[in-house]
Amino acid sequence: MCGIVGITDRKDAAQQAYLGLFALQHRGQEAAGIVAAEDGRLNSRASLGLVVEAFPQDILAGLSGDSAVGHVRYATAGDSNLRNAQPLVFDNQHGPMAIAHNGTLTNALTLRRRLEKSGAIFQSTTDSEVIVHLIARHPGPVEKAVVESLRQVEGAYCFLFLTPQKLIAARDPMGFRPLVIGRLGKSWVLASETTALNHLQAEFVREVEPGEVVVVENGRLRSLRVEAAPKKTAMCVFEQVYFARPDSTVFGRSVMATRQALGRELAREMRGVKADVVVPVPDSGVPAALGFSQESGIPFELGFVRSHYVGRTFIQPAQVLRDNAVRLKLSPVREILKGKRIVLIDDSIVRGTTSRRICKLLRSVGVREIHMAVSSPPIVSPCYYGIDTPSKRELIAANNTVEKIRHFLDVDSLTYLSIDGMLRAASAPGGPKPGGYCTACFTGKYPTSIADFTIGEAGRCRGPVAR
Amino acid sequence: MCGIVGITDRKDAAQQAYLGLFALQHRGQEAAGIVAAEDGRLNSRASLGLVVEAFPQDILAGLSGDSAVGHVRYATAGDSNLRNAQPLVFDNQHGPMAIAHNGTLTNALTLRRRLEKSGAIFQSTTDSEVIVHLIARHPGPVEKAVVESLRQVEGAYCFLFLTPQKLIAARDPMGFRPLVIGRLGKSWVLASETTALNHLQAEFVREVEPGEVVVVENGRLRSLRVEAAPKKTAMCVFEQVYFARPDSTVFGRSVMATRQALGRELAREMRGVKADVVVPVPDSGVPAALGFSQESGIPFELGFVRSHYVGRTFIQPAQVLRDNAVRLKLSPVREILKGKRIVLIDDSIVRGTTSRRICKLLRSVGVREIHMAVSSPPIVSPCYYGIDTPSKRELIAANNTVEKIRHFLDVDSLTYLSIDGMLRAASAPGGPKPGGYCTACFTGKYPTSIADFTIGEAGRCRGPVAR
Amino acid sequence: MCGIVGITDRKDAAQQAYLGLFALQHRGQEAAGIVAAEDGRLNSRASLGLVVEAFPQDILAGLSGDSAVGHVRYATAGDSNLRNAQPLVFDNQHGPMAIAHNGTLTNALTLRRRLEKSGAIFQSTTDSEVIVHLIARHPGPVEKAVVESLRQVEGAYCFLFLTPQKLIAARDPMGFRPLVIGRLGKSWVLASETTALNHLQAEFVREVEPGEVVVVENGRLRSLRVEAAPKKTAMCVFEQVYFARPDSTVFGRSVMATRQALGRELAREMRGVKADVVVPVPDSGVPAALGFSQESGIPFELGFVRSHYVGRTFIQPAQVLRDNAVRLKLSPVREILKGKRIVLIDDSIVRGTTSRRICKLLRSVGVREIHMAVSSPPIVSPCYYGIDTPSKRELIAANNTVEKIRHFLDVDSLTYLSIDGMLRAASAPGGPKPGGYCTACFTGKYPTSIADFTIGEAGRCRGPVAR
Amino acid sequence: MCGIVGITDRKDAAQQAYLGLFALQHRGQEAAGIVAAEDGRLNSRASLGLVVEAFPQDILAGLSGDSAVGHVRYATAGDSNLRNAQPLVFDNQHGPMAIAHNGTLTNALTLRRRLEKSGAIFQSTTDSEVIVHLIARHPGPVEKAVVESLRQVEGAYCFLFLTPQKLIAARDPMGFRPLVIGRLGKSWVLASETTALNHLQAEFVREVEPGEVVVVENGRLRSLRVEAAPKKTAMCVFEQVYFARPDSTVFGRSVMATRQALGRELAREMRGVKADVVVPVPDSGVPAALGFSQESGIPFELGFVRSHYVGRTFIQPAQVLRDNAVRLKLSPVREILKGKRIVLIDDSIVRGTTSRRICKLLRSVGVREIHMAVSSPPIVSPCYYGIDTPSKRELIAANNTVEKIRHFLDVDSLTYLSIDGMLRAASAPGGPKPGGYCTACFTGKYPTSIADFTIGEAGRCRGPVAR
Repeated sequence: MCGIVGITDRKDAAQQAYLGLFALQHRGQEAAGIVAAEDGRLNSRASLGLVVEAFPQDILAGLSGDSAVGHVRYATAGDSNLRNAQPLVFDNQHGPMAIAHNGTLTNALTLRRRLEKSGAIFQSTTDSEVIVHLIARHPGPVEKAVVESLRQVEGAYCFLFLTPQKLIAARDPMGFRPLVIGRLGKSWVLASETTALNHLQAEFVREVEPGEVVVVENGRLRSLRVEAAPKKTAMCVFEQVYFARPDSTVFGRSVMATRQALGRELAREMRGVKADVVVPVPDSGVPAALGFSQESGIPFELGFVRSHYVGRTFIQPAQVLRDNAVRLKLSPVREILKGKRIVLIDDSIVRGTTSRRICKLLRSVGVREIHMAVSSPPIVSPCYYGIDTPSKRELIAANNTVEKIRHFLDVDSLTYLSIDGMLRAASAPGGPKPGGYCTACFTGKYPTSIADFTIGEAGRCRGPVAR
Repeated sequence: MCGIVGITDRKDAAQQAYLGLFALQHRGQEAAGIVAAEDGRLNSRASLGLVVEAFPQDILAGLSGDSAVGHVRYATAGDSNLRNAQPLVFDNQHGPMAIAHNGTLTNALTLRRRLEKSGAIFQSTTDSEVIVHLIARHPGPVEKAVVESLRQVEGAYCFLFLTPQKLIAARDPMGFRPLVIGRLGKSWVLASETTALNHLQAEFVREVEPGEVVVVENGRLRSLRVEAAPKKTAMCVFEQVYFARPDSTVFGRSVMATRQALGRELAREMRGVKADVVVPVPDSGVPAALGFSQESGIPFELGFVRSHYVGRTFIQPAQVLRDNAVRLKLSPVREILKGKRIVLIDDSIVRGTTSRRICKLLRSVGVREIHMAVSSPPIVSPCYYGIDTPSKRELIAANNTVEKIRHFLDVDSLTYLSIDGMLRAASAPGGPKPGGYCTACFTGKYPTSIADFTIGEAGRCRGPVAR
Repeated sequence: MCGIVGITDRKDAAQQAYLGLFALQHRGQEAAGIVAAEDGRLNSRASLGLVVEAFPQDILAGLSGDSAVGHVRYATAGDSNLRNAQPLVFDNQHGPMAIAHNGTLTNALTLRRRLEKSGAIFQSTTDSEVIVHLIARHPGPVEKAVVESLRQVEGAYCFLFLTPQKLIAARDPMGFRPLVIGRLGKSWVLASETTALNHLQAEFVREVEPGEVVVVENGRLRSLRVEAAPKKTAMCVFEQVYFARPDSTVFGRSVMATRQALGRELAREMRGVKADVVVPVPDSGVPAALGFSQESGIPFELGFVRSHYVGRTFIQPAQVLRDNAVRLKLSPVREILKGKRIVLIDDSIVRGTTSRRICKLLRSVGVREIHMAVSSPPIVSPCYYGIDTPSKRELIAANNTVEKIRHFLDVDSLTYLSIDGMLRAASAPGGPKPGGYCTACFTGKYPTSIADFTIGEAGRCRGPVAR
Repeated sequence: MCGIVGITDRKDAAQQAYLGLFALQHRGQEAAGIVAAEDGRLNSRASLGLVVEAFPQDILAGLSGDSAVGHVRYATAGDSNLRNAQPLVFDNQHGPMAIAHNGTLTNALTLRRRLEKSGAIFQSTTDSEVIVHLIARHPGPVEKAVVESLRQVEGAYCFLFLTPQKLIAARDPMGFRPLVIGRLGKSWVLASETTALNHLQAEFVREVEPGEVVVVENGRLRSLRVEAAPKKTAMCVFEQVYFARPDSTVFGRSVMATRQALGRELAREMRGVKADVVVPVPDSGVPAALGFSQESGIPFELGFVRSHYVGRTFIQPAQVLRDNAVRLKLSPVREILKGKRIVLIDDSIVRGTTSRRICKLLRSVGVREIHMAVSSPPIVSPCYYGIDTPSKRELIAANNTVEKIRHFLDVDSLTYLSIDGMLRAASAPGGPKPGGYCTACFTGKYPTSIADFTIGEAGRCRGPVAR
């Protein structure tokens, strides 16, 4: 997964982009980049690591300019892929240009082969580079080249394009990924989530609509469209369930409220469970556990202390630390748990290995019964729209019945939330209608062709769903 | 503040010490060190930074030995004080020796002046170096030299001494700081808190008693005493209130249970407060807020999302990040808070500046009423026993009435827990009697002389109470 | 300036390329890169700094493959230009490809503008990227695309192209820069200078001829031609005078022998000078000073001790060091110099500022007379073929008479070698005929059009003639 | 080996000390340290690595103070010995104090054991720490404590002691190591060699005499004595032969002149050798080779090009580089050497392995005859006075006849300079009388007891004679 942010008409544009990336850090921890436009020139910096690591004070101060775009990225491909870090910067007939992308283009491979045939050269393995070539082949003005190029690509995308004069934002016609518009004084802010607006103390204006291209130039914002008639949307429900920050409003719906509602739905579907306490897997399970407790009346307790020192770091941690990773991250509180029947709440199960270790930890401090409750349905299919789920072979629910998973986890009962329950919680009030969501990872029903999906494994911009 | 750990009779002693330090990381984030004893020799490593930063895999693997001691340290004195990092290692007539210290010696300055007169040279500015000189001047056996030397020092201490043959642990006669004994197979483990035992999967045996010196040699543990008759104890109540990890049992009492009990006491003292929700300042206020909610019946809600990316790092964060530190760490959730009357729970107020910023953030998202509730009494005096409270001049409650503080914080009401309430929660069940605690920071009543307290500002081992 | 090396058919191809780059380090100290071909894939690494800094053991070991190309680069553009580091690596219709370039394309700007118009995007500011685009637009086979593309470029170049199957080398039709072929067992080696062959213990086979394209595939080497009829050559005499390593044979002529011959020519042109000793500016003036001494009979003496600790390093040296740079690098030996009349030999004068400081140092230890003797003619014009001479405005001899320069240097006499004398020394025996050299920097007569010379200032691959 | 420098009465004392250390870098490349005295306080910094690496601009600028001492160190003990870096800094009854040491105390072990018995603690493994304890046990004034303490130590030493008020220098009664006094305006400079004075543009005043203690205070220099009557001196002839910089004057004699004279003596002892050219092993053999050529009339030629890129660096060089270290450092020039009978000049042979590789390189380019000529006698005994010669077992001349060594090196003849020839060259004019030199490494006759020589292997301050 990735996060993107753009801002115009501020002397400290790069600083603001930095704050915005900081707010979006959960969307990508592998690399961070910022490009600022100054006097007809683009100043750029990208680095592996967290935002605070990638941008020491002196580096940030060097990124002068009146507008800027930033990007945080998650990827699987180890340490050598700085070339894949975004924003990508390049020169073409439109002059210098930067591009930041969240999502995955599902016809990138086909387009790449076609472009190479006609003389294109590629520097990275990202699907994002394809759009660059398309734009470079269309004559100006640049926003026209962008719209024409977007008409050739398929899949999930939110794009930010920066030139010395313009900031252009685009969201795909099905609206897979979120992108919002904010106002900060005279500046326009574009960001993946509203939490970035909050961090900048910017005011939320509206979402970029599915299929819309927004152009900011000379302090004014205007709107173009990739497609005349809007398509049926396919907004990613997993943003609500897992990915977005709880303090964001995504697709018009509060994420925190959604997650508490998921817990309440789950409590209704598990009515009658006999338990002494509701315990979340921190931090992701906490809102759903609160909702579950409120609905069920079973007391909420903190059964784990989470270490803040198990972090992502450039330093390879010692082997003994990696061997004990789950134990060191989550420490069970014996006084709370001993002899209890617990409802253990997590937001999802991917491979099942982490959940299993957590349950084993609980047994080691004397928990009597574990009723595992998952505030989303079983994940049965990989995502080809930007989230880094593992292959089908590794997804435990793609290959096992619920009873087999229960047995693998060694719990007394295992309950997943139903798809209907999930969509109810995600939709109302404020969110898209239940039919407006993409639920491919839970249902295997992909809203686009996925024929090309093998391209760009290394650089594809996907998220950390690796549990 | 500092954390210490020691282990004997394990081939991977340094690895185990590393895990123990990881568990105690909250007690000191500035520097970490480990010394391992191997074949008559001590292998040592200390480095500024977190445990994971200080000990990359190859460094840790190089610390071979059958027994080891480790130390994490918090200090105020910037980047140049690696010389002050512990364990201190030195040669003397007893052979090579390492020492790790948690606490502060209150007569260190007097002793240092006397030692210098008779030819001692000092390398660091820590009070801990004084004990080294005392031991070096007493003939062997080394445990006798330790006991004799401890009889000359005053103040708060837990010490671990490591020689190629012995691991010696000592706790001061008033028992200010915690120190526990654990067993892991044939190994003995000594650690500041029980959470370190849990992390090593060691079994809790007992506390080191106030005034006790424990010697582990040839796989056996025996006990000596600094003072024949036990003194009245002065165990640090702030360990329970703030400092220790919630999954530890400290002075015989579960820290998590204590903090929930503090919240319940507070709810009783605030009976009748009119509020819609109870909101903790994460993470420190969460247990008390849960207790408050359980006792009062007012719903518990997560009003803040805490960023995990505001961390301690070697990289100097950009200025813009430091300017927005509180906002970036704690992001209020508008949907939860807007229009609400809230009870805001925190565990303590030191300077008041952070609390004030938090309350301002709450107002910015439309909170209607803030009833600030602190699960400890006003802090009115600095600590001279190891916790790094600021000087009296900076302590807001040392210089202002509660009403003035309420006004400064701009809240609708402000309530501190009473001293009696605090001691009730800390004491029962399992903990020391109310009179067995040191409450100097809340009362100004110091259980020892504090005449020398100006020595060793730079290296004094004190904790991060800097809010 | 740059240095390039390529090798085929060795399991340890990258290691050998590393040795070759080490031998060519004098041709570029700013950045180093190696690309190795392995199983249809290219493994690459480039880094700022010296070869030994850029390739730690583990990185080098990771560059597995059976063939490899390497590049060292000198450039003026500070620390942010890793993007310009070579070999450039990219994907196109011919598959993955790497390119290493020594020289400067004089029509690069014209070509770039034309390419951008037809949709090309550029990632770097180097002239080298132009050739990449030309090749990507020609259909295969790749060597045909290379030859066709080279027919469109003008200027000075030696290129190495690496694909998973082939290593292709090319030298421009006028032969500005050197490029030699060597044999090491079954491997073919291509390198800028013969010293790289010596370092690899490879046997010298022959030079790549001007206008020749050499293709190594399946262990066999074959030859193509960019132009059917050979042009009049324009080999860089400055390689002989200054740039190449003295242990190399360049353009068929021993560099060491050339430089001693330059000294002898100079001695003949200065016949009758009255002096006690001949003193070189180390290390560059030593061979000419030896030749001068041998021809003139005036004793050779080491008047300076050169520090090996004034080096290129990532660490910004302290100001006090930079202020005293010449003094710290060259320390005069008073016992040798005091009261003496000396002939001071250097290989060239560029700006004159360093020479002036050296002469001042000599005066400070009591030298009686300084007869400055330069083993090359006055430099009056910038180089547009790869050597980083400063602009005309900064070249002291472009703006002053010899007498004015003598006055500026504050020496008793100043003698430059004549152009005829230089060409005599450079040509025989073994070298090109006098008319086969480019002497543009000494004469202003450029053998190609230089209309485009303003492109790519930042990334142009030029040498360290900055004295 | 080590180098030391001190300066008083300059606002930029640390900067000047830095320049002085830079000039003395050849005396120690492992670690560098500077301590500056400012307002009753000592500011210090020591770091592994070269002077330029150890002192970036900002660090150096932070070392404010009016007087300073610096130290460069060579040692064998790998990367973990920063604790051994000097100047040592400590507090004692005389207040804060720094110490820098060149030499080796031969009774350090005996003294250390005695000190430990009476309560001393040791932080380092250097012999230098012993003197610190002795001083700390003598009451003031500090120069009296220094003189009293020096009367208890034996062996080779030059010491600099810095307190906030005084700079004290001391040289052992036999004068093993050099130490000179210079004047720079109102400042006093103390340094191991005169080249440091030249670098600072200070004027040479005189040597510190054997057995003299010099105290600089309030801008005035006064002299004390360790021993009333001067001993027979034992100045290190190896300083002249190998260690000191050629532009220094050591023990009153120009080093460059000595080395040329060594070559002339050698030419006389080899009269009649049949050879075409004299070739030095660069850079150390160059002065002797020039002298040999001048005396014998055989032409001097540069047969090797020495790489400046084989340096000491923090980066572990790749294995392939280490395997080819000699070849990469010294590249033979075939055109000079092929078919020639050469006299190969080096200043010494220690283990013989490097010389053997060099000779093999020469054979590989077709040298016809090699007459190896060494400008010093065979090294048969280790040094216990500060130079890091290997153990007797590793010294080739301690275990083999000259004929066997000749056979090992595979040369046509091998000639060492005689001891008489060496002492003649070293002594006149200006130097000590032949009997005033220590020649222990050539003769095995040690001028002091060496009973304690096993102490402090790790930290002993010895030089890089490891060939």
